[in-house]
Amino acid sequence: MTDILLRSDVAVTLDRHMGDDQTIADTARVTHPDLCGSRLERRDLGLLNMLMRDRHGTPFESVVFRFHIEAPIVVAREAHRHRMASVNEESGRYRRLRPEFYLPAPDRPLVQTGKPGAYTVTAGTDAMGDLTRKTLTAAYQAAWDAYEALLAEGVAREVARFALPVSVYTSWYLTLNLRALFNFLSLRRVTEATTVPTFPMREIEMMAERMEWAARTVVPEAMSLFDQYGRVSP
Amino acid sequence: MTDILLRSDVAVTLDRHMGDDQTIADTARVTHPDLCGSRLERRDLGLLNMLMRDRHGTPFESVVFRFHIEAPIVVAREAHRHRMASVNEESGRYRRLRPEFYLPAPDRPLVQTGKPGAYTVTAGTDAMGDLTRKTLTAAYQAAWDAYEALLAEGVAREVARFALPVSVYTSWYLTLNLRALFNFLSLRRVTEATTVPTFPMREIEMMAERMEWAARTVVPEAMSLFDQYGRVSP
Amino acid sequence: MTDILLRSDVAVTLDRHMGDDQTIADTARVTHPDLCGSRLERRDLGLLNMLMRDRHGTPFESVVFRFHIEAPIVVAREAHRHRMASVNEESGRYRRLRPEFYLPAPDRPLVQTGKPGAYTVTAGTDAMGDLTRKTLTAAYQAAWDAYEALLAEGVAREVARFALPVSVYTSWYLTLNLRALFNFLSLRRVTEATTVPTFPMREIEMMAERMEWAARTVVPEAMSLFDQYGRVSP
Amino acid sequence: MTDILLRSDVAVTLDRHMGDDQTIADTARVTHPDLCGSRLERRDLGLLNMLMRDRHGTPFESVVFRFHIEAPIVVAREAHRHRMASVNEESGRYRRLRPEFYLPAPDRPLVQTGKPGAYTVTAGTDAMGDLTRKTLTAAYQAAWDAYEALLAEGVAREVARFALPVSVYTSWYLTLNLRALFNFLSLRRVTEATTVPTFPMREIEMMAERMEWAARTVVPEAMSLFDQYGRVSP
Repeated sequence: MTDILLRSDVAVTLDRHMGDDQTIADTARVTHPDLCGSRLERRDLGLLNMLMRDRHGTPFESVVFRFHIEAPIVVAREAHRHRMASVNEESGRYRRLRPEFYLPAPDRPLVQTGKPGAYTVTAGTDAMGDLTRKTLTAAYQAAWDAYEALLAEGVAREVARFALPVSVYTSWYLTLNLRALFNFLSLRRVTEATTVPTFPMREIEMMAERMEWAARTVVPEAMSLFDQYGRVSP
Repeated sequence: MTDILLRSDVAVTLDRHMGDDQTIADTARVTHPDLCGSRLERRDLGLLNMLMRDRHGTPFESVVFRFHIEAPIVVAREAHRHRMASVNEESGRYRRLRPEFYLPAPDRPLVQTGKPGAYTVTAGTDAMGDLTRKTLTAAYQAAWDAYEALLAEGVAREVARFALPVSVYTSWYLTLNLRALFNFLSLRRVTEATTVPTFPMREIEMMAERMEWAARTVVPEAMSLFDQYGRVSP
Repeated sequence: MTDILLRSDVAVTLDRHMGDDQTIADTARVTHPDLCGSRLERRDLGLLNMLMRDRHGTPFESVVFRFHIEAPIVVAREAHRHRMASVNEESGRYRRLRPEFYLPAPDRPLVQTGKPGAYTVTAGTDAMGDLTRKTLTAAYQAAWDAYEALLAEGVAREVARFALPVSVYTSWYLTLNLRALFNFLSLRRVTEATTVPTFPMREIEMMAERMEWAARTVVPEAMSLFDQYGRVSP
Repeated sequence: MTDILLRSDVAVTLDRHMGDDQTIADTARVTHPDLCGSRLERRDLGLLNMLMRDRHGTPFESVVFRFHIEAPIVVAREAHRHRMASVNEESGRYRRLRPEFYLPAPDRPLVQTGKPGAYTVTAGTDAMGDLTRKTLTAAYQAAWDAYEALLAEGVAREVARFALPVSVYTSWYLTLNLRALFNFLSLRRVTEATTVPTFPMREIEMMAERMEWAARTVVPEAMSLFDQYGRVSP
């Protein structure tokens, strides 16, 4: 029997990108190419401000990010719904999965209250947290043992994996443009600047946070304006 | 403890649709509206033939289907990758999931051979089949017991579900046009007419089969031409 | 020489559609199928209200419209930018175009003031209107004469058409879902309910108006909520 | 009166890009990250070959290009139909257009023969070429004079432009991934390697050629395989 690995993180790496704040301004200025420049100037900031305020979205599509993500399947499922991204994910049909499972950290909220469309999740007791982690760990180990037992008998990976939970880790490359990223962030992360209510699951919010932190180094002005105008996608 | 329900099917219902073979021909004929008609005539069939043969794809987008699907999560994961569809799926955050699990039927192939990109899966022995179903059933029941135990302690549904396997059933509405359906079928179903190699998992092929059977009643000529030209999406 | 035909309209026909207000509610309720019904009830209206208010957009994609449009090329150019629609347009390569040209009606605003991103266009004098219509009519007739002269010499339609102005009429089928339509309307039509500034050209606004009037008969509740929440696309 | 400028070219600049042949291989190998490398090796070429042959399209989406294009409106109209690209085009509403017009070069084929779906265009006589260029030049100058006359009277740019032909030059930024580019090239360029019939207008083929030449410097192996497998988009 193999010991399973328990993780509580979502890992996000910005593998590469194309474009920056200047690119957005230059794209919007295709009508006035004489005004394009090599450094971000005051008039560029004014233009970016107008684009975000009045929701002229297409210039933001000229900046593209490629991320590598490691997260549990349950997060991948939610993330793959966004249709403006290119996704290549590892396959449980073509390789033996790794015995890595997501376990909620001790500070992960555990108690759901409210009604559909407006749930909130708040902290549980320490005892509830201990029980949750213990119960999940046992379930994961049992599922993994079943998976390994079936593989050992020669059963195909694609069948043996039916035993594995949605908390098993997967990984994927994700290529998307800044406008698609804004849309993702508006739905999957809540900050003090948020103006349209949304209730993301904590685990996908962790993914969104890390994507935003990385993207902010590339397009600091655009991200700042996204906050200023209520985190609504242009 | 709740007894779990074991299923080996993928359920597909064609909820409604818009358009038919005639609509495709009329759309292609926007340049020549005087030739549009109310019944499919010989010249319409010739036009459909040319559209499929030379891969003029957009007229096929004027036919739209809305399906309701019930399938295990592992199938939903693959199906949601196709980006030209609209999907609304039930949520394990907002409702208690049902104790329904996918169990491979006795005739489901079990042994994977070959190399990446060209795997085939063939029948296993009866003993291997029995072991698979017995091992999976036990794993499912254990996972469900863990899920129910956590819910009973007041743990949020979105956390308790981490224990559940990818074989648990989910359901969704799927709206897509005929061109997107052709693309899906070219990748997810293999028939004698297939000319581009693809190796779909048996469970998503079951979904594809049922979608095709339903769609064929709506656009019999277009489906026949899809076969005739090698099941390549126009 | 052929006399040209002058038109000042954009013609929109709702050819067919799939779904209605009830379909949107049922789609959103995939998590709770027991609550789906055959008549729109009070609880459905509450659900539609929540979907629009909190911008849960995907259920609105389950309603699909197919329009037939006749409009000048300059309008077609703007309309085709919206990427969630299927378009089949008549071709000036494959048929002789019709001598139909767009001429601004007497009440069409003629004077542009303001700066980029915030232009407004207001009424001109009667003399300016007369001059505009007279100058354009002469230009159209001269262009059409050139087109016909080249065709008469055996020059290919695709080359002869280089002489024709962007005001010549074209026609196309347009298939799009309600969410895409909301997006189009938010950018291309201004009403008293509009909250995000936009400055559509009058001619594409005419197209948007007629699409909205037709769609409103199919999804009156959704359209009413679109107005109520500021004509922002969910 | 302003003298007009006559051009016979389509100008394409590859402004920037993200990724290369190696990126495609690494993306496909997300299941086997241990095999990713920093140089393109023999096994990478084998993998690229398999991806193209069996039409595994998504890894090709990890390479992104941003082009700047100058072309007549009639070409822009065709190019903007492809829905996987981000486009920002100069606006005839917000700036005075330039007096630049497309004039077919002497070697541009002029005579169309065949039937819908299978037209070919072949060389005309010298006299036909002279007449075409003379007639178009006169029509362009007359249209530009009308445009300037209306602007001089204070008529809005968006109205005055109704006089201008589809041969006037425009420019735009175009961001798209390699898979979308393959699709564009399969429809808009014909070479000896082409296997699916298509009949592009010469002017958009000029745009496609230049995009392909630029992209080939970035992904030479992928482009070579595109040819090898019949110029069908994966």
